[in-house]
Amino acid sequence: MNRDYIKPDNWSIIEEGFDPENVKSSESLFSIGNGAMGQRANFEEKYTGKTFQGSYIAGIYYPDKTKVGWWKNGYPEYFAKVLNAPNWIGINIEINGESLDLNSCPEVTNFRRELNMKEGWYNRSFEATLQNGTEIAVNVRRFLSLNLDEIGVIKYEITPLNKDSKIVYKPYIDAGVSNEDANWEEKFWEPLEIKKGTNEAFLTAQTFKTHFKVSTFMHNSIFANGENINISASSIDSKQDKIQFTYGTIIGKGQTSSIQKIGGYTVSLNHNNTLSAAEKAIKEAVDKGYDKLLEEQAESWAKIWEMSDITIDGDVKAQQGIRFNIFQLNQTYSGKDSRLNIGPKGFTGEKYGGSTYWDTEAYCIPFYMATKNQEVARNLLTYRYNHLEKAIENAQNNLGFKNGAALYPMVTMNGEECHNEWEITHEEIHRNGAIAFAIYNYHRYTGDYSYIPKKGLEVLIGIARFWHQRANFSKEKNQFVILGVTGPNEYENNVNNNFHTNYIAKWCIDYAVEQIEKVKTDFNTDFCRIIEKTKLTEAEIDEWEKVANNMYFPKSEDLGIFLQQDGFLDKDLIRVKDLDASQRPINQKWSWDRVLRSPYIKQADVLQSFYFFEDHFSKEELKRNFEFYESFTVHESSLSPCVHSIQAALLDKMDMAYAFYLRTSRLDLDDYNKEVEEGCHITSMAGTWMSIVEGFGGMRVKDNSLHFSPKIPKEWEAYSFKINFRNQILTVMVNHDETTFSVDSDADLAIVVNGKETIISKTVTA
Amino acid sequence: MNRDYIKPDNWSIIEEGFDPENVKSSESLFSIGNGAMGQRANFEEKYTGKTFQGSYIAGIYYPDKTKVGWWKNGYPEYFAKVLNAPNWIGINIEINGESLDLNSCPEVTNFRRELNMKEGWYNRSFEATLQNGTEIAVNVRRFLSLNLDEIGVIKYEITPLNKDSKIVYKPYIDAGVSNEDANWEEKFWEPLEIKKGTNEAFLTAQTFKTHFKVSTFMHNSIFANGENINISASSIDSKQDKIQFTYGTIIGKGQTSSIQKIGGYTVSLNHNNTLSAAEKAIKEAVDKGYDKLLEEQAESWAKIWEMSDITIDGDVKAQQGIRFNIFQLNQTYSGKDSRLNIGPKGFTGEKYGGSTYWDTEAYCIPFYMATKNQEVARNLLTYRYNHLEKAIENAQNNLGFKNGAALYPMVTMNGEECHNEWEITHEEIHRNGAIAFAIYNYHRYTGDYSYIPKKGLEVLIGIARFWHQRANFSKEKNQFVILGVTGPNEYENNVNNNFHTNYIAKWCIDYAVEQIEKVKTDFNTDFCRIIEKTKLTEAEIDEWEKVANNMYFPKSEDLGIFLQQDGFLDKDLIRVKDLDASQRPINQKWSWDRVLRSPYIKQADVLQSFYFFEDHFSKEELKRNFEFYESFTVHESSLSPCVHSIQAALLDKMDMAYAFYLRTSRLDLDDYNKEVEEGCHITSMAGTWMSIVEGFGGMRVKDNSLHFSPKIPKEWEAYSFKINFRNQILTVMVNHDETTFSVDSDADLAIVVNGKETIISKTVTA
Repeated sequence: MNRDYIKPDNWSIIEEGFDPENVKSSESLFSIGNGAMGQRANFEEKYTGKTFQGSYIAGIYYPDKTKVGWWKNGYPEYFAKVLNAPNWIGINIEINGESLDLNSCPEVTNFRRELNMKEGWYNRSFEATLQNGTEIAVNVRRFLSLNLDEIGVIKYEITPLNKDSKIVYKPYIDAGVSNEDANWEEKFWEPLEIKKGTNEAFLTAQTFKTHFKVSTFMHNSIFANGENINISASSIDSKQDKIQFTYGTIIGKGQTSSIQKIGGYTVSLNHNNTLSAAEKAIKEAVDKGYDKLLEEQAESWAKIWEMSDITIDGDVKAQQGIRFNIFQLNQTYSGKDSRLNIGPKGFTGEKYGGSTYWDTEAYCIPFYMATKNQEVARNLLTYRYNHLEKAIENAQNNLGFKNGAALYPMVTMNGEECHNEWEITHEEIHRNGAIAFAIYNYHRYTGDYSYIPKKGLEVLIGIARFWHQRANFSKEKNQFVILGVTGPNEYENNVNNNFHTNYIAKWCIDYAVEQIEKVKTDFNTDFCRIIEKTKLTEAEIDEWEKVANNMYFPKSEDLGIFLQQDGFLDKDLIRVKDLDASQRPINQKWSWDRVLRSPYIKQADVLQSFYFFEDHFSKEELKRNFEFYESFTVHESSLSPCVHSIQAALLDKMDMAYAFYLRTSRLDLDDYNKEVEEGCHITSMAGTWMSIVEGFGGMRVKDNSLHFSPKIPKEWEAYSFKINFRNQILTVMVNHDETTFSVDSDADLAIVVNGKETIISKTVTA
Repeated sequence: MNRDYIKPDNWSIIEEGFDPENVKSSESLFSIGNGAMGQRANFEEKYTGKTFQGSYIAGIYYPDKTKVGWWKNGYPEYFAKVLNAPNWIGINIEINGESLDLNSCPEVTNFRRELNMKEGWYNRSFEATLQNGTEIAVNVRRFLSLNLDEIGVIKYEITPLNKDSKIVYKPYIDAGVSNEDANWEEKFWEPLEIKKGTNEAFLTAQTFKTHFKVSTFMHNSIFANGENINISASSIDSKQDKIQFTYGTIIGKGQTSSIQKIGGYTVSLNHNNTLSAAEKAIKEAVDKGYDKLLEEQAESWAKIWEMSDITIDGDVKAQQGIRFNIFQLNQTYSGKDSRLNIGPKGFTGEKYGGSTYWDTEAYCIPFYMATKNQEVARNLLTYRYNHLEKAIENAQNNLGFKNGAALYPMVTMNGEECHNEWEITHEEIHRNGAIAFAIYNYHRYTGDYSYIPKKGLEVLIGIARFWHQRANFSKEKNQFVILGVTGPNEYENNVNNNFHTNYIAKWCIDYAVEQIEKVKTDFNTDFCRIIEKTKLTEAEIDEWEKVANNMYFPKSEDLGIFLQQDGFLDKDLIRVKDLDASQRPINQKWSWDRVLRSPYIKQADVLQSFYFFEDHFSKEELKRNFEFYESFTVHESSLSPCVHSIQAALLDKMDMAYAFYLRTSRLDLDDYNKEVEEGCHITSMAGTWMSIVEGFGGMRVKDNSLHFSPKIPKEWEAYSFKINFRNQILTVMVNHDETTFSVDSDADLAIVVNGKETIISKTVTA
C-alpha cells in the first residue's frame, strides 16, 4: 500500500486520483473540525467500499463497560469514549435511477480531494461513469463553521456530462450509528424524537447511561445552475432513528444541479432545550447562506493563521507538514471551554477514546500558550483543577492512598480513570508530574501567578501527597525509592526507580513546598482557605521533604548517565542501528515480553526529564544521555521525535534534528506508522510546533524573558513564527544569515538572543 | 456468610439444614466425577434460588475468543474452555400440580447432603411442605460410575407424608446450556439430532468450532415402593436442544414413589458413532440395574482407597480433609487416557477453563506416581511430549524463539497457549522448568529410564534451547541474566532474575546435557533418531553450557538468602504478622500495583526451588530462606501452604507444619479463600497429600531408595499411608512412639529411615 500519496503544497492537503485503498487514510487526513465537533472525510453519498465512518461532538461520551482478560482490583468500571455521533452529512444520490457509489462506478476520473487549510474547507471533486452510462462531474465542498460552531455546511454539485439527467437527492440524518471500537456491541444512542419541517428536520437522541442529549439537524435547498429552485421534498421517510428527504430534479446535460445542506448538532452540554436551540442555529445559518458562511470561515481561519502560522521557505513538504499540524490543532481545540480537552486523535478517529491524556500538559500547552491568549492555557489547567476531587477519589478508592493524595487518571473524560491495563493505569504515574509541571510552565511562560493561589496550589498539594506516599524507604539503598512504575517509555513496565518518575516526583514535592511558602507569604487569604480545606500541616510538609531530599536516582558512573530504571544495564544492549530492519516496528513484530526486556525505547524517557528540566543539567550531561538513549530509541510513539529533535538541535546535531522534524511533522501525511487510517496523531502535532520554535528557534523562557538561539536546517532557506508572550506578539524570522525579531506593540520587548540581552522595538535584526 | 458448615466425619462430607446461601458452595463441595465426566451437585429438580449449574466432560472444550482490554502481540487467539455440557441430571417434579422448588417451599426440614467418599455416591434428602400443603420426604442418590465411565445414575424417591398424591416426573436432557464464564456470550453447543425411544432419549450435539460430538442420553424407570411399575411416558416434549418425558403416578400417603434415571455421555473422542455407542452404553447399564451399579461403584472405590487412603487417628477434621482431597483427585483424573489432564478446578467449576497448568507437573505427579501404577504418571508426561511441536510453535511463532526452542503453554487444552495476560502467558516461564523437572522426578521415583530416550529427551532439548535463548549476557554483571519474568509468586510481575526461574533454567540445561550424554552412551539408536530430528550439535550444547555455567543468582550476603528477584530488598519489608488483618486477602483488598510493589508473596517462590532441589542446599540455608520468605508469604494461592508445610516439618517447626496442613487439606471444606462456590481447588489437593507423605512422613527418594524421617503432629494419635514404590506397596504407620513399615510382596524392600538403612520384610517396626 502506497501511503505517501499526498501532493506537496504550501497551503493545502491534496490527493489526486481515486484509489479505494487510500479511502480510509484520506478520511483521516482530510478530517475537518471546529473545536466543538469534527468528522472524518467520509463521502456524503453511499459508498460500499472500505470506509471508517466517524463524526464526533466534543465532550459527548459514553462509558463503555471495561473489557479485560482478567480483572484486577483498581480497574475502572468503564472506558469513556467520545462517540461516533449521529450522521448529518449523508446525502444519497440517484442519477437516472442508479445510486451513486464510487465503489461500483465503472470509471472514476479526475478524483481530487483538497483540504484548504488557509480558508478551512474541504473539497472533493471527480468525474464518474455510472453503470447506466451516465457521465457526471461532481464537486462537493464541506466545512464546519468556526464562527457558528454548531453548524456545518455542504454544497454538493452534480453536472451530467453526456445526457440530460434525473437527479434525486436523498439527504438524511441518522442516529443509527455505531462505534468501530465498542467493547460489548452495546447501542450508544437512544433516539428520542424526530421533528420535520418543510425542508428541515431535527432528530433528538441521547446517549445511553450518560444521557447527553443531542439534536442533530439538517436544512436542504436544491439549486439549478446556482439558482435556488425552491422545491420541497417529494417524500419523507422517517423511522425512529433516521429521517430522509427525497428531492427529484431534472437537469440538462452540461448544466449543474446542486444541493446545499446545512446541518450540525446542538447539545445538552450547552442548551437546556436542544431542539429549540437547533431551530435557532439553523435559522441563523440559513439566513446567512452558504456564501456568507464560507466567507466568514475564511476570515476566521485568517485570524488563526495571523497568529499561529509558521512559514518555511524552500521546503514545501516541511511547510505543508507544519501547517497541517497547526491546522489540526486548531480544528481540535479552540480553548473556549474548560470542560473540553484534546484527545490524541482529535475528531479524526476513535482510538484512545477521544479522551484526555498527559499529552495535553506535556505537549499541547506550550503551543496554545504561545499561539493563543493565556486564557486558553488557563482553561486547560482549570480542567485538571475541576477534576481534583476525582483524582483524590481515584487515589483513595481505587489505589489505597489517603489524606488527599491525588492521582490524576491516565485517560479521562470527566476526571475518572478510564484505562484498564494495570501497567499503564496503575503504574504510569509520571503523568501526575506532568500536570504539576504544566502549572509551573504556565506561570513561567505567562507570568500569571494568580492561578496558583486560586487553583493550582490545591492540585500541587494533592500531587505532592501522592508522591510522598508512593515512595518507600529502601533500607538496602538507604534512600527513598519508587517501585513498580511505567515511565514515559511504555516499552518497560513495572520497573523500579524509573529516573524520570523519581526525578519529577522529587521536583513536584520541592515545587509544591516552594509554592506553599509563596502563597503563605503573598496570598494569605488563599493560603488560609487552602489550609482549611486540605488540613495541611508543617509536620506533613516535613515528611514530604524527607522523601524529596533523599530520593534515589539510578545512574551509571561509568557511562556518566542516569539509568532509565534500575535494571537497564542488564539488558542486551544492541543499538537500534544494529537491529535488523525486518524486526521493526518492534511493537508490531515482537511479543510484549520481548519488547519489555529489550533495550528499545518507545519515546523520550530519561530525555523527557532533560526536556522538562533542561536547566538542571549541564550540556555535557545532556549530550551523554542523549547519545546513549537516542541509540536505543525506536520512536514508535508519535510523541517521541519532537523531543529528540529539540535536543538534537540544542546539541548542534542539525541533520538529526531535521530528520526528526520531518518525521514528527509528516507523521500522518506520510503515514510513518502505517496506521493513519485510524486517525491522525493530534497531540503530537503540538510537539511538531515545539520542534521548530524550541528546537530550531531555540526559544526558552527564563527569568521572565524569552531566550532564543536560532538555528536553521540546511534544507531550508528561511522560516518564521510568532509568539504571544505576555500579550506582546513577537515575530521571529530566521534565515541562514540572520534572525529578525519584531513586536506588534509600541512597547519594547527585552529578549535574550544567543545569551545576549536584546531590546526589540517593533523590528530588530539580530 | 458462614462457610464452615460441613460436619466432621471420617468418611463423608455432610451438610445438615437447608440454607440457600450455602447452595453454590455445596454444589462445589458435593461434586462428583469419574475421570471421564463430572458435575456440580446441582439439584435435579427445578431450583429458582442462587445456583451455578455445571456438568463437564473430560477433554471436551471450546476455543472461546480471547478477550483483552488492549491487544498485545503474542496473545493467543482463544481461551480453550472445558464447557458446561448438556444436562442429563434434570428431573422436574410436580406434586399435586405444584412444581417442586426448594426456593419456594414454605418449609424445608431435615435437609441433608452426604458425599460418601468411601463408596463414591452423593445423597440428598429433605422433607418439604409445598405451597399446596403437601408434605413430602425426598431422598436422591446419584453417582457417576467408575466402572462404566459414560454412565451416571440417579434414584429420586418421593414419599408423600400427609396425603395420597399425584406425582409427575419430568426427566429431561438439555443441550441449551451456557457457561457462566464466556467471553462473548457465544453459543457453544449446536444441537444436531434427537432420537427417542420408549423410556429413553438421545440428544446429539456438537461444540461449535471444535466439533466435538456428544450424545447425551437418559433412560427412565418409574417405581412404586421399590417395584418397577413399567409405565411409559404419557407425553414427550421435544425441541431442537431439549427433550423431556412426562410420567404421572399416584402414590399413597406414606408410600414411596421413585424414578431411576440412567444418563451420561458418549463422545467423539472415543467413538466414531456416538449415538450407537450411547445405545450400547445405556443398554449395558440398564441391564445391570441400579443396585448392581451401586455395588460395583463401592467396589471400585474400595480398590482406590485400598491403595491411596491415608488414615489419621485422633483428628476427625484432618482425616476428613485428607480423604476429601484424595477422593477429589481420583474423581478428576483416572490416568487412563494420555489426552487428558488435571484442571485446577477439576469437574467442580469453570474457573481456569478446565485446562492444564504447571500444577500437574509440580504438584499432581508425585501423588499419582505413589498411589497408582507408573503408567498413570507416564501418561501425564506423554501429554506434554505430545504437545512438544505446539510448544515449539508457540515459542517460535508467538514469541520469536528459533531452532526448536520450546515454551510450554501456561494454560492449555491441546498444546496451544490459551492464557492472555502478558505477565503470565509470556513471562511465567518457570513452568517450562517444572515440565523438565517432572521427567527427572518420574525417573527418580519409578526408576523407569525408558521414557527419556523414547520421549523425554526431545522435551528436555526443546526446553534447554528455550532457556539458552531466553537468557542474555549482562555486561554489567558479567553473567547471564533472565529479565522480565513472573516467578511462581504471581504477586510480582516482569521482574529481573527471579531466583527460582534462573535456578531451574540452569538446572534444565545441566540435566538435559547429562541425559544427552547418557542416551548417547546407552541408547544410541534413540540418540541418532533424536539428533536427526533435532539437528542438535556439540557446538550448540557448548553454548547452552556457557549460559548454565555462568548464570546469575541474586542473593543477599548479609541475610544469607537468595533474593526472589533483583529488587526485592528495596521493598517496604513489613512482615505479614505486622500487616493489618483488614488488608487481607491483599488480592481482594489492594489494587494490583500495590500488590506488586509489596513484599507479600502469593506462594512459595525461592522456596519452590528449595522444594524441588532440596539436596542442593544445606538445612541452614533452607532455614534462613524459609524464615525470611515465610514471614512475607500470604498463601493466597491454594498451591502455597503444602510446600511450606513440608519445609516446616523438615525444620522441626511442627506447629507451623500442622497449621499449614489444615489450611491445605481443608481449604475448600472450610472455604479459607471465600470462593469455594466457584469450585474446588483440585490440583492443590495433591499438595495436601505431599504435606503428609513428604512433610510428616519425610519421604524422599534418593539413589533409588525410599527415605523416611517420620514425624507426627501433637494433635494426632497416629497416621498411615501407602506408597507404590516400583511395584511394591509399602505401608507406613506412624504414631508418637514408633513408625511401622510393611510391604505387601515377598521381596524385601531396602529403605532408609532417619538416615539408617532398613530392610523391610513384610512388616518391620522402626
